Amino acid sequence: MDAYGKTSRTTLKRAHERGCYDRATVHAILDAALICHVAFLHDGAPALIPTAHWRDGDVLYIHGSSASRAIRALETGAPACIAVSLTDGLVLARSGFHHSIDYRSVVIYGAARKITDEAEKLAQLKIFMEKIAPGRWQELRAPNEKEMKATAVLAFDLDEVSAKVRDKGVADDPEDMDARVWAGVVPVRRSFGSPEQDPQLAGDIPLPEYLKDYKGPG
Amino acid sequence: MDAYGKTSRTTLKRAHERGCYDRATVHAILDAALICHVAFLHDGAPALIPTAHWRDGDVLYIHGSSASRAIRALETGAPACIAVSLTDGLVLARSGFHHSIDYRSVVIYGAARKITDEAEKLAQLKIFMEKIAPGRWQELRAPNEKEMKATAVLAFDLDEVSAKVRDKGVADDPEDMDARVWAGVVPVRRSFGSPEQDPQLAGDIPLPEYLKDYKGPG
Repeated sequence: MDAYGKTSRTTLKRAHERGCYDRATVHAILDAALICHVAFLHDGAPALIPTAHWRDGDVLYIHGSSASRAIRALETGAPACIAVSLTDGLVLARSGFHHSIDYRSVVIYGAARKITDEAEKLAQLKIFMEKIAPGRWQELRAPNEKEMKATAVLAFDLDEVSAKVRDKGVADDPEDMDARVWAGVVPVRRSFGSPEQDPQLAGDIPLPEYLKDYKGPG
Repeated sequence: MDAYGKTSRTTLKRAHERGCYDRATVHAILDAALICHVAFLHDGAPALIPTAHWRDGDVLYIHGSSASRAIRALETGAPACIAVSLTDGLVLARSGFHHSIDYRSVVIYGAARKITDEAEKLAQLKIFMEKIAPGRWQELRAPNEKEMKATAVLAFDLDEVSAKVRDKGVADDPEDMDARVWAGVVPVRRSFGSPEQDPQLAGDIPLPEYLKDYKGPG
């Protein structure tokens, strides 16, 4: 199946052309982003945390301290909502009204499953590391028991999920086309600077291949 | 007053050193970010939208279509939570466990006030434009009545608010310091590409000064 099913929550009520249920599009957005935002309920009110995420097949994963308030609220399987957003361009139109942002986003409704199997947890933490720094996992010592215990991994099935993509640039009303004002798009990019080594790093440890000309995930 | 008061929801339970209630820090993070994520309740479950925001004094503003589901849920004054997150660096430590992200984030708990006064709404939309493209507002025609009606502006008082900042780079356990693995930080940056003019732009309209060497807000 190459598309996710729609539900009432994931069906766009306006700007329908931005809605996208295509599996490959959803996966590409999730894979390119470094962080997501996770909404959950705390004492009946919405709460929100930014956190790193990764994807394996049709499952999105986050991790955190087993003691954290967000993890403890989420691991009960309470309803959650996760958003991933990538900003691609500032759209400067000929009217204030049509100013916009070109973006790609994904919203997931669901509930967490806590990964309790240690081998599965370890396998997922490796996939997470591979997303950020492919090849690094094997260079590191294995996590110890205390670290594994302190780390919770939560899984969210990609089931009730949709993407929104705006990439059309300037879209003005016909009557504004003669306005004497510059119109266009300012591209917004995520970039990475040269890796800065830890001041305490031994002088003979070279920069690993996976950090040379680093482009990030996605 | 140069700091926000703490509440039980904004008091960090762990990693206390990351908590920050300093007004200037909170404002700087809000001003530098292009978008926020807003959590609200929809049929009793958390829902989430990414949207642009701006700040005026101790108030955060968002805008949207008056018809949007999120705006309609929020304008009732129902509890909301807003997060703004800036990713500054990928922290590659000597153990998997201490890998982290250097970041700056703000979380706001509160409820929206809908701005109904037209002059106030217009003044805020101008402040929004000035955040993105200082000087552009005066180049554009004024919004018309239909556009103003279609645009809702919501205000969130900065009251129950906190920032979190991690900027310490690599922080390994003493027993890992001799590990033969590269450790350091890969800086993550937001950058802007050269403005791309609308293909339909008249040939004699030059790039405005505010877009030359554009650095974005903040």
